[in-house]
Amino acid sequence: MARTFDTALTRLLGIRYPIVQGGMQWVGRAELASAVSNAGGLGVLTALTQPDPDALTAEIARCRQMTDQPFGVNLTMLPTRTPPPYEAYLDAAIASNVRVLETAGMVPAEFFAKAKNAGMVILHKCTAVRHALSAERKGADVISIDGFEAAGHPGEDDVPGLVLIPAAVRQLKIPVIGSGGFGSGAGLAAALALGAAGINMGTRFCATQEAPIHPDIKQALVNATEVDTKLIFRTLRNTARVLKNEVSQEVVAIEQRPDSTFADIAHLVAGARGRAALETGDVNAGLIWASQIVSLIDDIPTCAELLERIADDCAHRLEAAMAAIGVVGATAPALAARA
Amino acid sequence: MARTFDTALTRLLGIRYPIVQGGMQWVGRAELASAVSNAGGLGVLTALTQPDPDALTAEIARCRQMTDQPFGVNLTMLPTRTPPPYEAYLDAAIASNVRVLETAGMVPAEFFAKAKNAGMVILHKCTAVRHALSAERKGADVISIDGFEAAGHPGEDDVPGLVLIPAAVRQLKIPVIGSGGFGSGAGLAAALALGAAGINMGTRFCATQEAPIHPDIKQALVNATEVDTKLIFRTLRNTARVLKNEVSQEVVAIEQRPDSTFADIAHLVAGARGRAALETGDVNAGLIWASQIVSLIDDIPTCAELLERIADDCAHRLEAAMAAIGVVGATAPALAARA
Repeated sequence: MARTFDTALTRLLGIRYPIVQGGMQWVGRAELASAVSNAGGLGVLTALTQPDPDALTAEIARCRQMTDQPFGVNLTMLPTRTPPPYEAYLDAAIASNVRVLETAGMVPAEFFAKAKNAGMVILHKCTAVRHALSAERKGADVISIDGFEAAGHPGEDDVPGLVLIPAAVRQLKIPVIGSGGFGSGAGLAAALALGAAGINMGTRFCATQEAPIHPDIKQALVNATEVDTKLIFRTLRNTARVLKNEVSQEVVAIEQRPDSTFADIAHLVAGARGRAALETGDVNAGLIWASQIVSLIDDIPTCAELLERIADDCAHRLEAAMAAIGVVGATAPALAARA
Repeated sequence: MARTFDTALTRLLGIRYPIVQGGMQWVGRAELASAVSNAGGLGVLTALTQPDPDALTAEIARCRQMTDQPFGVNLTMLPTRTPPPYEAYLDAAIASNVRVLETAGMVPAEFFAKAKNAGMVILHKCTAVRHALSAERKGADVISIDGFEAAGHPGEDDVPGLVLIPAAVRQLKIPVIGSGGFGSGAGLAAALALGAAGINMGTRFCATQEAPIHPDIKQALVNATEVDTKLIFRTLRNTARVLKNEVSQEVVAIEQRPDSTFADIAHLVAGARGRAALETGDVNAGLIWASQIVSLIDDIPTCAELLERIADDCAHRLEAAMAAIGVVGATAPALAARA
């Protein structure tokens, strides 16, 4: 059945399914973003995956050739010694007339203002309600709230989506989408029930046909269970959730040594970038970002198959849940009448 | 509207709402258990809150005077140097004809067999799918799967309900209920959408009129937000989630000292039992078990008010989520027809 959704997110972005593909370093390229957008979600190009702003301009043009549906650009601003030219990347997205900006990290108010003035819809990704409120004040249009389950940077508060999503929904005026640990129809149904206007998926999209990742890494995501991710860099207060492998085990071991220093860990990090693993298929070649949704990933479908399945499962889950609720006196569980 | 639910849990237990009050040391007494059962959930007496098996027999009799609805007894078996007479507590529950046993911790197969032979329904609480599968093999009738959000003992795997519930549901044959971080209609709706047959609530029931706890502690639960719980005893591999207070901060500080010993922590624990806080209302008198649901606790209703509100909110959340789903070609979101 060809389903369609009507939520604050789908209306704002003009998409069919309330599903955003979150920005992912080395993965958020035109192949994946266009496939997600063609499938009815919002595909997102990751700005910093491109070596410079001109390359981002070219990647946006390449994505446009692959889809006529809306897609976005992700700009993640993390603390770093030699920051990339963030504003030039933003300018490239604006000049290319990209309509949706996904922001994450410490984004200055001027960046929000510039994107708003250019008519962009801003989805801001963050891990705490206080950060979400701050982004709302700065002009964000949607908050993508990242729970403890999330890959990449789940923050330091350790609040999962079951609590974090409703906590954000009730304090924010703008729509909220759930992020971290999502990738199934059950998850989308739960997010909607918790008051979200949709979900953001990252890891689940890595295990699709179109993700520009070595097949052996996709298979590693299929094989992993809910206990196969690790939190690292907690000692740096820059926690990341990654797949359990030799590199992440080594990082954890060094972090647990009482005499380890910041330099020890930083050195290890520099040598453990995930790009090599994604490209060579050697699961131990580097750190691999992965959310706890790996528990529920069993196959490597196309993005279109995945989104249709999620939409169908979501509808069936909600129907089954509703069917369990009746009214006292009725002979069988009965639904409330609706206009 | 007087709602009723029809799930595997409500059918098995003969209750109106798919909501179990989890066993809680010092809190699971006849006042609370009878109030929950009278309100349409399953109230549970905590065996070890009673000084000996005879006292449990008396408490069961007291609870029977306060409700004619089904209630259960919780038996939690944690590793300890001088174990209480667990089997005698179980025998007391059986002799008193209690129909529901909530188990947690390391429960021997003989205990399951004994309870089954006595005709009891066994709800086993655990924190990992592998433990749930083991309990299913031993004869458990329902698994109450405890996510990372949970108070008390959330385990060492750190998997929240959004992932853990569907992971458990798809591997188990018996019904699963969600536990940890539940206490609202949104949470019940999400649990049902994730495939659970209901929820287990602990902390939320502490903030009710009938909970036998000092009012100042109930107010502390109302005041707390999603960042006001702490994980302690991680170094002992016996993690507990408690309210942030002077005692838990001190435990964390000692655990983080590289030279702290097991004895240091054990000594501190012995002096920091939570009963004093619950009884005196001094929030810093001891450790107070609390799940992350404190984020969403705003008031101190009666159990009847709480369960009716949760049932109503759950229905409204599911209706709103369903209303967002339509079929391509329909002029407005339309529900699938149902017999």
